Amino acid sequence: MLTLYYAVNTCSLATHIALEDARAPYKLHAVDFAKSEQQSPDYLKINPKGRVPALVTPRGILTETPAMLAFVAQSFPEAMLAPLNNAFEFAELQSFTSYLCSTVHVAHAHRVRGYRWAYEATSFADMQRKVPEAVGACFDLIETRMLKGPTTLKPKSPRSVPVSALHPLGRLIQERPVVDSACNASG
Amino acid sequence: MLTLYYAVNTCSLATHIALEDARAPYKLHAVDFAKSEQQSPDYLKINPKGRVPALVTPRGILTETPAMLAFVAQSFPEAMLAPLNNAFEFAELQSFTSYLCSTVHVAHAHRVRGYRWAYEATSFADMQRKVPEAVGACFDLIETRMLKGPTTLKPKSPRSVPVSALHPLGRLIQERPVVDSACNASG
Repeated sequence: MLTLYYAVNTCSLATHIALEDARAPYKLHAVDFAKSEQQSPDYLKINPKGRVPALVTPRGILTETPAMLAFVAQSFPEAMLAPLNNAFEFAELQSFTSYLCSTVHVAHAHRVRGYRWAYEATSFADMQRKVPEAVGACFDLIETRMLKGPTTLKPKSPRSVPVSALHPLGRLIQERPVVDSACNASG
Repeated sequence: MLTLYYAVNTCSLATHIALEDARAPYKLHAVDFAKSEQQSPDYLKINPKGRVPALVTPRGILTETPAMLAFVAQSFPEAMLAPLNNAFEFAELQSFTSYLCSTVHVAHAHRVRGYRWAYEATSFADMQRKVPEAVGACFDLIETRMLKGPTTLKPKSPRSVPVSALHPLGRLIQERPVVDSACNASG
């Protein structure tokens, strides 16, 4: 059995959707950011980074969304969540999830997490002002250069979880019932 | 044949070392940051993100280091650069490379790339002041919680390229002849 430690309105939704897509047996464990539970001693034993998501597996605990998505895809191959037998296409998928995490999510995080990278309130306010431009440039790139049909993979490839999971790309997400299901289950 | 677009003193060294480790046939193409070649029209056709590295393959172009490292490992399995037949261990490796890219590299990038996330020179200076603390916390976590023996995988697992590649962890890198080779080749 897998247990996903998640928080509402965070990128843990990506792995949650992947678990739903894979029809994986899993449990949910909410981490309450309003109570700073992600920094509690108990949670830091699960994930010393003090962030979500974390996926407790029989083999150990995984963190970092691209790794968790690949793990779900590889653990439930019948769900065809990734092109597991094609190194180039698998790398394209990993490239996209990595871009979302390393660039898009980071750009977005400067809206309210400026304290990770600076000390002063004036810097935080400056970072907030830049977010629309920085995140907008990311989505321009995604929409004009990365999408191939409805996903970042070719239309006939296995469907690409990350496009429809880590960040909303309009209809790509909203039209998928499994996303409603994951959102409702996680509150 | 593969072609690695790289720049000196950047994270493209990780993929360069992996290619050396894999004994892959490859060519190098230098991108001169001093001349802002990464923003030139010709290079933006290779990588519209305007960054290095990029790996030109017969199937297409890959970007994002975690994806490229996985691609090299999967394309040259005899080099045993990753635990390709164990979904959990592969995810652990991907988790580490993802952490390096999404958190460690980003923390470090605030030293000289503050313009990505803010507008004001005062913010850039504030970001620079925070870098030792932010990057130091990352390396504390790596050294106290992530290393398992000399790598982030168990000692008997295939060797972990990223530990010895993306960021220097002292002797782990310096003692490896292949790293000297890659550094010398890339100038």
